[in-house]
Amino acid sequence: MPNKLSKRINHERFNRYVKRSSEVGRTDNNGLHRLALSQADKEIRDQLKVWFEQAGLTTTVDDFGNMYGRREGKNPHLKPIVIGSHLDTQPYGGRFDGVLGVLAGLEVVESLNDDHIQTERPIVIVNFTNEEGARFPQPMLGSGAITEHFNKSFVYEIQDEKGITFEQALQEIGYVGKEEYRLKEAEYYLELHIEQGPMLERNSKQIGVVGGIQGMDWLDVNVIGEKNHAGPTAMEDRKDALASSARMISTLYEITNSYSGLKTTVGKLHVHPNVANVVPGNVEWVLDVRHEDDTLRMTALDEMRHALKQQAALDGTSVTVNELWASPAVLFDEDVLGAIEKSTDNLGLTRMKLYSGAGHDSKYMPYFGKTGMIFIPSVQGVSHREDELSHDHDLHNGVEVLLHTVMQLDAN
Amino acid sequence: MPNKLSKRINHERFNRYVKRSSEVGRTDNNGLHRLALSQADKEIRDQLKVWFEQAGLTTTVDDFGNMYGRREGKNPHLKPIVIGSHLDTQPYGGRFDGVLGVLAGLEVVESLNDDHIQTERPIVIVNFTNEEGARFPQPMLGSGAITEHFNKSFVYEIQDEKGITFEQALQEIGYVGKEEYRLKEAEYYLELHIEQGPMLERNSKQIGVVGGIQGMDWLDVNVIGEKNHAGPTAMEDRKDALASSARMISTLYEITNSYSGLKTTVGKLHVHPNVANVVPGNVEWVLDVRHEDDTLRMTALDEMRHALKQQAALDGTSVTVNELWASPAVLFDEDVLGAIEKSTDNLGLTRMKLYSGAGHDSKYMPYFGKTGMIFIPSVQGVSHREDELSHDHDLHNGVEVLLHTVMQLDAN
Repeated sequence: MPNKLSKRINHERFNRYVKRSSEVGRTDNNGLHRLALSQADKEIRDQLKVWFEQAGLTTTVDDFGNMYGRREGKNPHLKPIVIGSHLDTQPYGGRFDGVLGVLAGLEVVESLNDDHIQTERPIVIVNFTNEEGARFPQPMLGSGAITEHFNKSFVYEIQDEKGITFEQALQEIGYVGKEEYRLKEAEYYLELHIEQGPMLERNSKQIGVVGGIQGMDWLDVNVIGEKNHAGPTAMEDRKDALASSARMISTLYEITNSYSGLKTTVGKLHVHPNVANVVPGNVEWVLDVRHEDDTLRMTALDEMRHALKQQAALDGTSVTVNELWASPAVLFDEDVLGAIEKSTDNLGLTRMKLYSGAGHDSKYMPYFGKTGMIFIPSVQGVSHREDELSHDHDLHNGVEVLLHTVMQLDAN
Repeated sequence: MPNKLSKRINHERFNRYVKRSSEVGRTDNNGLHRLALSQADKEIRDQLKVWFEQAGLTTTVDDFGNMYGRREGKNPHLKPIVIGSHLDTQPYGGRFDGVLGVLAGLEVVESLNDDHIQTERPIVIVNFTNEEGARFPQPMLGSGAITEHFNKSFVYEIQDEKGITFEQALQEIGYVGKEEYRLKEAEYYLELHIEQGPMLERNSKQIGVVGGIQGMDWLDVNVIGEKNHAGPTAMEDRKDALASSARMISTLYEITNSYSGLKTTVGKLHVHPNVANVVPGNVEWVLDVRHEDDTLRMTALDEMRHALKQQAALDGTSVTVNELWASPAVLFDEDVLGAIEKSTDNLGLTRMKLYSGAGHDSKYMPYFGKTGMIFIPSVQGVSHREDELSHDHDLHNGVEVLLHTVMQLDAN
């Protein structure tokens, strides 16, 4: 089907979308501070409505504030191809995380309009509410809600730091839509996103074909020793929770290296009482373990738990391990991945397969339909920061691959 | 000389001193909150003056607020035997830390009065100002000042958390004395103190003969890696400042164990940004290294610095090490230690030699005269806490040894 396209996407038009979006909630350092359901979010939502109308799309809003722009297909009874992501950002975040996926959908539709192409299937562009979980502390809230991972009262009652509920905030910006407008099905779901990591750049690849989202476990590890004065307490009389934790962490990284592709992070650690001349009585840390193969991850976790107990026994400390959060791996659809690969190759672009370490709305969409994600390089892997950057040519490549993939899948 | 003593100390009188002191600044949990130059400190100082008078001592106060009670000797031209410590406490601290040393001095003098014994040398009891460094952040301020480790303007200008200077606080409680009253010399300095550690209790000894105060170094270690997202960043691409720190700390403890008696503590550690799913870019910690042998400590420190650099090189991190504080070891006088040992043995008490890990006024007193310290057991080594405890019989043993030691030394 790609050969039916008389021309490629319109770079200038797409750049205008990006430019306009980058003005709404702009920070002094050229980033975006556009928290979910804030005034800035209202402004970009109002803008999106205008863009939907200009592109000839029918706009609807559901009761979670998710916004849809629908372009009819030749066969309106077929399930749609859904293209989506989110327009909310992290606090002082970047211009592309999420935003790209929605604006790319617009550009795909406008390109089809330019070429007077009507697809077989309807196309629906979605802007999901509160993907970041930055204001309302539950990431991927809108996509999780429509796929029934969260029930409505849970969503409506979540509060931001000031105690404002999701429902209040939604009402305040006038985006309480109708339950009947919720997306209920999709043949395909496609999401274009910046990588937020360095792999594409380091491997000099233009397109990332995302195999899935890594499974992830967060364990709270609490190492309990005995608080003592550093001066009088002999080494052999100590039960030092930090010394013990240091040995545990070193061991966990050794274990990690024995499993190909496993990623382990101890990013958060608190020492108690955290005084220079006091032997720490208690150290608490969070262990983040990720892999796209759930079985491998579980095996590694078992080995880790065992090693923690063993080290504690050696050190005279005790350790408790509590699961804070577990998220199984999501593997994307092979047909969709194949279409992305073919489109990439047809366009003469280079590609590699990788797995997303972060969560995305794509995580929940396999409950509705065949899902795939496309990554483009982010400069130096920077994301969730104001200086998040993607080169224009990479952005354009990504949108082009998305357009071709839509055409490919529609022809299936 | 001990056989000249017709009887031992008066337990009831000594207990009354302790009881009264324990009421001034008493906390709900039976501890003491008597910060230097506070109203509670004024109250106990006023009480001490009364006790000095009752014991027939001449009271003077110097320009740092240090209080002296002098008992004349047969030969007033001889340098005095000084007995001292401090009446200020940690915030929500214990009843004995410091306090014991001053009250024991009183009881020694009263026991001599009971027996109508006049020593050859004058005896001076000292209550040093702000030993704890809890309110004005410089420990052993009064003893350090008279031994010219701190100059007067430095001492007067030190501020507490509220911005009140030492000088203002001293004026406020009416304890600005005269420069001419500063202690200028001592033949001997004796300090009785609770151990603040578990060694006596664990070894079932009644008296600790303190060989000196351990030398101590505080190093600020800053490990710099690269902040990255936990999700997308492959293990081999990481420069994890916490993983690197964990390996460094493990190695430092291995090195420590290869030096007999060396004590190493990492009690304070901060991770940046300290977020569970972010590979730490920077970890800063304080390394506390102690030993009574300065040469051994320096050798160990050199090995540690080398090991830190080596680990950083292996991990692709970088490390900076800055000396925050260095305090050479203080070794007490052999004659004084001998007198303490002899007194202990004469009294049929058990003893062991140990080194103080914490600082005390005794640290500065060797600049004036031959110094020694006596430790008594603290229950479970607890100190700097409201539940700091010493058994009555241990307290009495300590005062008795102090009295006998004074008599021994006076006969030299």
